[in-house]
Amino acid sequence: MRTAYHEQLDALNTILGDMCELAGAAMSRATQALLQADLSVAESVITDNDRMSEMSARAEEQAFALLALQAPVAGDLRGVVSAFQIVADVDRMGALALHVAKVARRRHPAKALPEEVNGYFAEMGRLAVKLAHNAREVLETQDPEAAVHLQEDDDAMDDLHRHLFTVLMDREWSHGVAAAVDVTLLGRYYERFADHAVLIGRRVVFQATGKTPEQFQQVS
Amino acid sequence: MRTAYHEQLDALNTILGDMCELAGAAMSRATQALLQADLSVAESVITDNDRMSEMSARAEEQAFALLALQAPVAGDLRGVVSAFQIVADVDRMGALALHVAKVARRRHPAKALPEEVNGYFAEMGRLAVKLAHNAREVLETQDPEAAVHLQEDDDAMDDLHRHLFTVLMDREWSHGVAAAVDVTLLGRYYERFADHAVLIGRRVVFQATGKTPEQFQQVS
Repeated sequence: MRTAYHEQLDALNTILGDMCELAGAAMSRATQALLQADLSVAESVITDNDRMSEMSARAEEQAFALLALQAPVAGDLRGVVSAFQIVADVDRMGALALHVAKVARRRHPAKALPEEVNGYFAEMGRLAVKLAHNAREVLETQDPEAAVHLQEDDDAMDDLHRHLFTVLMDREWSHGVAAAVDVTLLGRYYERFADHAVLIGRRVVFQATGKTPEQFQQVS
Repeated sequence: MRTAYHEQLDALNTILGDMCELAGAAMSRATQALLQADLSVAESVITDNDRMSEMSARAEEQAFALLALQAPVAGDLRGVVSAFQIVADVDRMGALALHVAKVARRRHPAKALPEEVNGYFAEMGRLAVKLAHNAREVLETQDPEAAVHLQEDDDAMDDLHRHLFTVLMDREWSHGVAAAVDVTLLGRYYERFADHAVLIGRRVVFQATGKTPEQFQQVS
């Protein structure tokens, strides 16, 4: 039975999904700014972050309204509590895209990245955008199977991140310490962005089933 | 008027405060392991992290029970929703202390840090522990004035973090790229630990007043 509570929760999850897509779009443009040392694209990511903050505030207000007005009980509470947690995750994803854009702006007109790691960041950017998109999808569909699968793209991200460190640690790294520091921090920003998308997947599993992904996979 | 709801919320905030203290103790020992290349201390931080995960799970259960059984309305909802958010923050603080301990373990028997940055990390460790302790205090007292002041210790942390980068970027850095990568990541772990303590302060302001720290400071 669909109740007003469920309809409003769906509407809230749609906003959260839109925020995921926005975070993904921000990371896509931040990656472009980073790879091409494109100042105007970097600036647009930085400016657009205000919109993410506004949407976070609006989503939290709606979640409070849902809790207060509909007084959900027991199982229903999972959905709205998860919504609060998802706001924090997606807000953080936006902040991490912002960090990437700020590195691109700080190094402009130079490129922040040595040529030899461009491929890593292009691929990490692609995975980050895919994860944000998939987080949106599972928020909309509430499909716990698909939500569990977000972990796989994160495994690919972790692999890239590990390889990136082997490049940095290689004796033949000739780009100096400053570039190594930038690459280290940037790598961490992409990896954390992916972690938050996976966390959103975990929270959707909990919204939909009341289980952790590990519990859900044992019974399914 | 003190209701059963408020008593249970106080009890929950006490658990959250204990978790802050535990995260602070973990960061204290992780810093010791880092500065002294002490493997057994590093191992103890890593093992004890399980206790933090258990406490997080217990705190979330109690928050759900509080929402479901007492059906709080309007203003009361702030306290319990903030509690869920604080669980996520303090859990992350524990994870960051764990990261520091793992770097110490990975580099053992060598020291991860070049001698010249030891002082920075000793001081960042001290500030991190102080912030965790202060987060506990404000959770217990629900004093919004004190909660706002967590920001000041974080400003000191940010200053240290910035100075650390100037040391890294100095042409005279003679410790190579691998040490620079470690120092970059470690610096970030301490800085993020402090950020989460400040976030807990913000959430206490909201629990106690229904306002953001900025709104609260305008009226007070």
